[in-house]
Amino acid sequence: MSVRDCPAFLKFCREIPARDEAIYRAALARHDTLTKPPGSLGRLEELGARYAAVCGSVTPAFSRPTLLNFAADHHIAEEGVSAFPQAVTLQMVRNFSNGGAAINVLMRQAHGELVFVDLGVCGDTAHWPHVRDCKIREGASNFTRGPAMTEAEALRALCVGVDTANEAVDAGATILGTGEMGIANTTPAAAVVCALTNLPPEEIVGRGTGIDDAQLRHKIDIVRKGLALHKDNLKDPLSVLAAVGGFDIAGMCGAFLGGVARGVPVVADGFISGAAALLAIHFAPQIKESIFFAHRSEERGHAKLLDILGVEPMIDLGLHLGEGTGAALAFPIISSAVAILNDMATFDGAGIPKKDEGE
Amino acid sequence: MSVRDCPAFLKFCREIPARDEAIYRAALARHDTLTKPPGSLGRLEELGARYAAVCGSVTPAFSRPTLLNFAADHHIAEEGVSAFPQAVTLQMVRNFSNGGAAINVLMRQAHGELVFVDLGVCGDTAHWPHVRDCKIREGASNFTRGPAMTEAEALRALCVGVDTANEAVDAGATILGTGEMGIANTTPAAAVVCALTNLPPEEIVGRGTGIDDAQLRHKIDIVRKGLALHKDNLKDPLSVLAAVGGFDIAGMCGAFLGGVARGVPVVADGFISGAAALLAIHFAPQIKESIFFAHRSEERGHAKLLDILGVEPMIDLGLHLGEGTGAALAFPIISSAVAILNDMATFDGAGIPKKDEGE
Repeated sequence: MSVRDCPAFLKFCREIPARDEAIYRAALARHDTLTKPPGSLGRLEELGARYAAVCGSVTPAFSRPTLLNFAADHHIAEEGVSAFPQAVTLQMVRNFSNGGAAINVLMRQAHGELVFVDLGVCGDTAHWPHVRDCKIREGASNFTRGPAMTEAEALRALCVGVDTANEAVDAGATILGTGEMGIANTTPAAAVVCALTNLPPEEIVGRGTGIDDAQLRHKIDIVRKGLALHKDNLKDPLSVLAAVGGFDIAGMCGAFLGGVARGVPVVADGFISGAAALLAIHFAPQIKESIFFAHRSEERGHAKLLDILGVEPMIDLGLHLGEGTGAALAFPIISSAVAILNDMATFDGAGIPKKDEGE
Repeated sequence: MSVRDCPAFLKFCREIPARDEAIYRAALARHDTLTKPPGSLGRLEELGARYAAVCGSVTPAFSRPTLLNFAADHHIAEEGVSAFPQAVTLQMVRNFSNGGAAINVLMRQAHGELVFVDLGVCGDTAHWPHVRDCKIREGASNFTRGPAMTEAEALRALCVGVDTANEAVDAGATILGTGEMGIANTTPAAAVVCALTNLPPEEIVGRGTGIDDAQLRHKIDIVRKGLALHKDNLKDPLSVLAAVGGFDIAGMCGAFLGGVARGVPVVADGFISGAAALLAIHFAPQIKESIFFAHRSEERGHAKLLDILGVEPMIDLGLHLGEGTGAALAFPIISSAVAILNDMATFDGAGIPKKDEGE
């Protein structure tokens, strides 16, 4: 993305199209012509119609589902907010590169593609197979001492997200998903959600990868401290992202914006991905209906975030792993919803009377 | 299945093995060695462990998921309990044969196989592609006037179900799903559930493919009338099935028993399939943990049935179509759960410290 200054980026955001409401209604209506009782596929029918509306076709294509995973470290980890040491970020990116992590396994099951982007991992991932080196800096700064990133850095990470989405669409993806890896990243995600919603940290901050009660109280204090430090500089999504966010969150936010700008639905994974989606919706409110929320995470703030957005996720299996694992599980459900629109016989075509034409 | 008399069938049921509890525990424990925070895949971990326990291996195979769809008519339809005319059963089986129904579309998405079995459709399906002619009689009788089937007929339909499951396993399926087609079949399904649970019809009878309030009250009366007529002959699962069930329900019941007898998990779809699962569990209580409940149907009695069984389904998308559509959507979730057990790297293998080995 050539845009590197804020006004141009905000102009890009404003120009992203909203979904096509006429197509949405036409796709809902198409379901009633298919050989099944009206409404009997439940929320699958609405999912198909929403997908159609983003793509601009009542019989949309579904190909090459691609999960974009953005990895970065967070020096807020030094405050003791995570159950795992910071070094695990690099080790897990190595695991991604080797194909051994949960997201690798689940994307193989989803018959999709995976793109790993290093936006700020501490340590060298250059030349690792399947990992793109787009590192901006080794770790966002500790936001209790200063801003996590400069606004220029945040903008660069956003643009990497947009570019990554564009490249996946150019390669044939008609749907994208977002995921992340970054030890301690539930902490900046919670701070971003609190800053954008004005909800108190105790309602949003959760246990991440598994901290105990005392660590949870400490983590809430850390988020509160960061929000207090930056309180005069949380005026818009870019300033919030720079002050208390992170490179991974910025990359995912850019991927939502970039994907929808190309007429491609983008799937949000869990809490951290959801925080990035919330940011993207603040940058471009018209894209909200083009984002698909995969699942309800066990992470405390996620159910609250979904409530605020007024969305109902597809899956509720108690996942709280991140990486994009919930999005990977949602891809087959979405592909099924799209296939129903494309491939089912109609009552007319099959020579079956509709309910109201019955005996 | 050579068994054609009741004592031999009941002996077959008694001899079906329960799942392997040691394998179940070992599979749960294996999840904690994989490169993810403990428990972070939520219910997917339990699903994988349950699958492993049925198959008898901590790293079980997953191949050729096969949906067994049993079609049959029900002359209870003449009481006006369905929104669709009886002729639609035959028309929909034709639609199955032509590949145009929802179950065809969803099983293609699930990369699985479909087997259609005509156990009692009114009309000739012989020589239709992809439909097996195992017809016992054209439609179960109106159970408000006499038994739906003789016990000998019910036993024959059960054995077709067992045989169909066996053939699918012989062809390479390591997991089966059940589905059905039969206009009016929510009525016998409700009667079966009421007979086995002693719950009143008004708590179980629902709107099926979409009847109005007056029709629903009438449908409840019909179920109540049938249960009253047969009240002295609802003493065991076979007598219940014969009195108020149907050929499709019997076929699915046999498929649950036959699949689990081969060490293969069987997925229940919605309400009618759930009624067949409840029957199967009455024939062989030890198979309960080997049945996977795919989704929570919108059909009124289904949530109640799942509560009684104490099971939580995988999907809750408001489906109420039948055919096996919920089971088809569940297959990719189960295959993902199994792939996690088989394909993820371990902490040791990836050189990553576990949480409690952290700094």
